[in-house]
Amino acid sequence: MTIPGIEDIRSAAGIIAPEAHRTPVLTSRSLDRITGAHLFFKCENFQRAGAFKFRGAYHAVNRLETEEARRGVATHSSGNHAAALALAASLRGIPAYIVMPENAPAIKKAAVKEYGGHITFCAPTLAAREETLAQVVQQTGAVFIHPYDHPHVIAGQGTAALEALEEVTAPDIVMTPVGGGGLLSGTSLAVKALSPATQVIGAEPAGADDAYRSFHSGVLVPSVHPQTIADGLLTSLSERTFSIIRDHTDDILTTTEENIRRALRLVLQRMKIVIEPSAAVPLAVVLEHPQVFEGKRVVIILSGGNLEVDRSYT
Amino acid sequence: MTIPGIEDIRSAAGIIAPEAHRTPVLTSRSLDRITGAHLFFKCENFQRAGAFKFRGAYHAVNRLETEEARRGVATHSSGNHAAALALAASLRGIPAYIVMPENAPAIKKAAVKEYGGHITFCAPTLAAREETLAQVVQQTGAVFIHPYDHPHVIAGQGTAALEALEEVTAPDIVMTPVGGGGLLSGTSLAVKALSPATQVIGAEPAGADDAYRSFHSGVLVPSVHPQTIADGLLTSLSERTFSIIRDHTDDILTTTEENIRRALRLVLQRMKIVIEPSAAVPLAVVLEHPQVFEGKRVVIILSGGNLEVDRSYT
Repeated sequence: MTIPGIEDIRSAAGIIAPEAHRTPVLTSRSLDRITGAHLFFKCENFQRAGAFKFRGAYHAVNRLETEEARRGVATHSSGNHAAALALAASLRGIPAYIVMPENAPAIKKAAVKEYGGHITFCAPTLAAREETLAQVVQQTGAVFIHPYDHPHVIAGQGTAALEALEEVTAPDIVMTPVGGGGLLSGTSLAVKALSPATQVIGAEPAGADDAYRSFHSGVLVPSVHPQTIADGLLTSLSERTFSIIRDHTDDILTTTEENIRRALRLVLQRMKIVIEPSAAVPLAVVLEHPQVFEGKRVVIILSGGNLEVDRSYT
Repeated sequence: MTIPGIEDIRSAAGIIAPEAHRTPVLTSRSLDRITGAHLFFKCENFQRAGAFKFRGAYHAVNRLETEEARRGVATHSSGNHAAALALAASLRGIPAYIVMPENAPAIKKAAVKEYGGHITFCAPTLAAREETLAQVVQQTGAVFIHPYDHPHVIAGQGTAALEALEEVTAPDIVMTPVGGGGLLSGTSLAVKALSPATQVIGAEPAGADDAYRSFHSGVLVPSVHPQTIADGLLTSLSERTFSIIRDHTDDILTTTEENIRRALRLVLQRMKIVIEPSAAVPLAVVLEHPQVFEGKRVVIILSGGNLEVDRSYT
């Protein structure tokens, strides 16, 4: 089981530099006042394809040998990894085959199509997704790029924290949301290598707390019937991401749906930037556990900005 | 009738510098692709109190003599000028008396209160507003700061274009939305003084096209029963703003509600920043009249970001 090191994250940063955005780190006077913390928001909502996922996908696609890459890449996803992989593949000039559930949001299907991805629809179950993906891979010879259980993807995701630490020196805490654990893994590896005294905390909805329970029990617990508006955080950890998080993450804290909605609203209204519900989860954790964060310098990775816009404006 | 000059705008820039944000100028690869123009967005949605209005309000408040200022400032507004004036007054440590219609949005009332403004409610008619304001001014001795028919306010609004032209040299076109005409007046004065070859275009909803009709007929036409989601653009030009716009603005173009909604959605979805409907009107004009803008370098002043957030997320 390959675990990337800081040199892999540095190498990934070099590989993605020509195409990925170096996203800004923003602060907010009013959110600092409300939380009592000093917050630094690393804005991956401004990343290409609207989420940090482009970092890992682009890195993985560009680490493929020419011969391997020729027949394209494939994945199953209803979310940001699908669009990120389609864009990364199009930039390399190779096909991307995306298996999506029939009931995926129209906006997600449109994003994959816009980047030239070939969509195969399947029934909305994990079994159907995996089976359809296996067929697609067999028919096309494309390389499966897993959304998080992949060392090149994890190394790519770690580049967001690498950049953040170049702008915010030795913060007390770095936080990311945790779903499958790719972003939290890459972030933990980067932060612990570069700033060992900085704590890394994963933020998870209480309604989808499999990573919390896995971390605190020491046994990988799968995600079963998760209930949350943070639709990017429904997946389970893999053995690889669980192992990295267990060894390199300091804590996982959870938050209610009410605080996720409040955090989302605060970012939209106070910072005037668009984030998706999953990206609001770390700020929600700060609102829910103020004593942990009071007076601390906290970097929050705003993971993505693919929010369904209010239909009343569309 | 005092008309500010470029030296007044430069002086305003110096006066507001300690408290106003120097807002960023953002670009968007995908909006350039969609419109065929090269767009530069001056982000006044990130300005304090969420709109360019803070520039004019802060400037006007800080141009008052100590004795004049002592008893405070007053205005009638259901919109961004109210919050901006309340914040500007609180920064000077003087009271702000705001007359608002009873049916003003809760979020606008909350913003004025948060900045320490004293609200007097009135019936939702212009007559009631003006009468109530006159009473408030008589009782308190506060100085009325008009939202746009005021030379210090106009000079303050012109500082956004001043900053934009420091970052984007000699653009082909600068655009702002037009309601009462304060922003368009200040922008026209700044741009024509600093870059005479640059065209200044006002953008107006077809459903509230009083400035368009005034500009093209040469006679000030008041706004009667305007119908638009761009709720910051319902007001009429004053003699002062009409005179400035007639002499210094190159054109006013209108757009449908459909294109305003489309422009708003594009900014939220593609740029991942929050703007209010009024701020979407210039981009809507670009979508509606592509031949005017194709291949041109166009600065758009995104006037504000005080959007009512989708209730489904709150």
